[in-house]
Amino acid sequence: MIKLDESSIIKIFQKGLGNNEFVSEDVEIFNLGKIKIISKTDTLVESTDIPPKMKLTDAARKSIIACVSDFAAKGIKPEYGIISVNLPKKISRSKILDIVKGFKKASSEYGIKILGGDTNAGKEIVFNVTLFGNSKNIVTRKGSKKGDLIFVTGPFGYTSVGLDLLLGKRKESGKFAVKSIKSMINPKPKLKFGLKNKKYFSSSMDSSDGLSTTLNEMSKQSKKKFLINNIPAGNDLENYAKSHKLDLNSLVFHGGEEYEFVFTVSPKYKQIIIKNARSLKTPIIQIGQVTSGKGVFVKAEKDYVTLKDLGWKHF
Amino acid sequence: MIKLDESSIIKIFQKGLGNNEFVSEDVEIFNLGKIKIISKTDTLVESTDIPPKMKLTDAARKSIIACVSDFAAKGIKPEYGIISVNLPKKISRSKILDIVKGFKKASSEYGIKILGGDTNAGKEIVFNVTLFGNSKNIVTRKGSKKGDLIFVTGPFGYTSVGLDLLLGKRKESGKFAVKSIKSMINPKPKLKFGLKNKKYFSSSMDSSDGLSTTLNEMSKQSKKKFLINNIPAGNDLENYAKSHKLDLNSLVFHGGEEYEFVFTVSPKYKQIIIKNARSLKTPIIQIGQVTSGKGVFVKAEKDYVTLKDLGWKHF
Repeated sequence: MIKLDESSIIKIFQKGLGNNEFVSEDVEIFNLGKIKIISKTDTLVESTDIPPKMKLTDAARKSIIACVSDFAAKGIKPEYGIISVNLPKKISRSKILDIVKGFKKASSEYGIKILGGDTNAGKEIVFNVTLFGNSKNIVTRKGSKKGDLIFVTGPFGYTSVGLDLLLGKRKESGKFAVKSIKSMINPKPKLKFGLKNKKYFSSSMDSSDGLSTTLNEMSKQSKKKFLINNIPAGNDLENYAKSHKLDLNSLVFHGGEEYEFVFTVSPKYKQIIIKNARSLKTPIIQIGQVTSGKGVFVKAEKDYVTLKDLGWKHF
Repeated sequence: MIKLDESSIIKIFQKGLGNNEFVSEDVEIFNLGKIKIISKTDTLVESTDIPPKMKLTDAARKSIIACVSDFAAKGIKPEYGIISVNLPKKISRSKILDIVKGFKKASSEYGIKILGGDTNAGKEIVFNVTLFGNSKNIVTRKGSKKGDLIFVTGPFGYTSVGLDLLLGKRKESGKFAVKSIKSMINPKPKLKFGLKNKKYFSSSMDSSDGLSTTLNEMSKQSKKKFLINNIPAGNDLENYAKSHKLDLNSLVFHGGEEYEFVFTVSPKYKQIIIKNARSLKTPIIQIGQVTSGKGVFVKAEKDYVTLKDLGWKHF
């Protein structure tokens, strides 16, 4: 048995299927008739993605949310969805009702029509969601220019804390604990913000695999250097990290599951972006700037240090 | 714990999602921009759908084939595919290569471009495939008319024998055993036949859940009686059933996994259908006729007897 990492597995698929674009954009784009279809598939697996204390309703909702997040990053409205569900043979009616409730919740929140799908028996619960929309073109991961500003649509790192609390690794109560758990179980992709502002984005990417993964991918695809001088987290997270002797950067950059997105804009659009964010109550944060060169660097006490891609990997 | 059957589970989804069309046609149809998209999702789960002796390459191929079969029944070309794969964390590189080989095989055979997908860690292997095409309209399950002839695109019942052999329930060698196992591991939906002839079909449906399920569904949706007077199986299957004291009707009508389809046509198209089948080497078989009334009946020694829906159910 060889232990393979996710990128090796993806490479085997790319090579074998003669398709080098396997998993390289947030969404799939293809022409049917005269229009461009945008679609995104995401899978939520019980043993990997559902912490013991997470409710099935929240997990089912999140399986749709994960796809919505990619549409939000690209500023495209997801219009339809297809859901495949694997269920253990002995699942109870009430658990199925919980699951359906979660699907209903997400589809109502984001105005998606669920077309259908299939149900299958399996060893564990699996939700596989595919969403569809259409658009003439998409904001890519590779379009950032020298001088562009780098923004995120919300704070990072709280999901890591939330997951630890859900897993019982740490105990914590109060406002900060509630906020952290909520960030994990009830993520809210900023779809409206994406729809309204995509025309200003030079590049964008969903960041649910971790901010370090996203920034590195955007930098690599854009062939630009990303300089990060503002860590998108509040004092509450900083204090928590200090008091538990945790590395703040690890929480913020490598946790994942935030379902926010990163976008770059020319400085000339800064004011309009901020104005739009305010009217939509989207707590965008400017975290840095694009420059020439390569790699992602975070401002440390003295100098900038390399930010490695240490986000979520499945294998 | 309540043990729920598949149709109860589907009803919970339909009700909860406010969509009564959940799983009622072979394919999903939706408008995007100005065109009609046709899509189909199917899931293959290791513990449910992969018999121990089946190769991963064949299983991966079959996960695409299962969707192709629905497109074939509707006479629509599947153009693109998205594949989600769940893999156990310790899977070997050679097994992954086998899987990719199967996806490649199916996509080459039927001219489908695989756009991408995702890979996930899970307790067991799961392949989730979604295929896309476009069409102005589709042949429904409900359009059969009084007097129409009922056809199938190939013989039935061999897959049941093949599965028993793969599961080691029975031992058998020789030509018949090879043919039966092949029908199970290497099904070939009659896509070209569907594409060429759909204009003549008054109704059609993929029959992979079992011929009795398909005929009952078509009869119910069309509000017509289906009379079956010719069982689509050869003497070899009949002899096998006799010698093993198996019920031939159970093998033929309730087995499933044939990936053939059922279609109805007006008698005026009989000759052109037969001519087209011959030129495409599709071994179509006329099995009966549509009449007024309801229910599906099979000719027995003296009279017609009710054919119940006893095809494949997941739960």
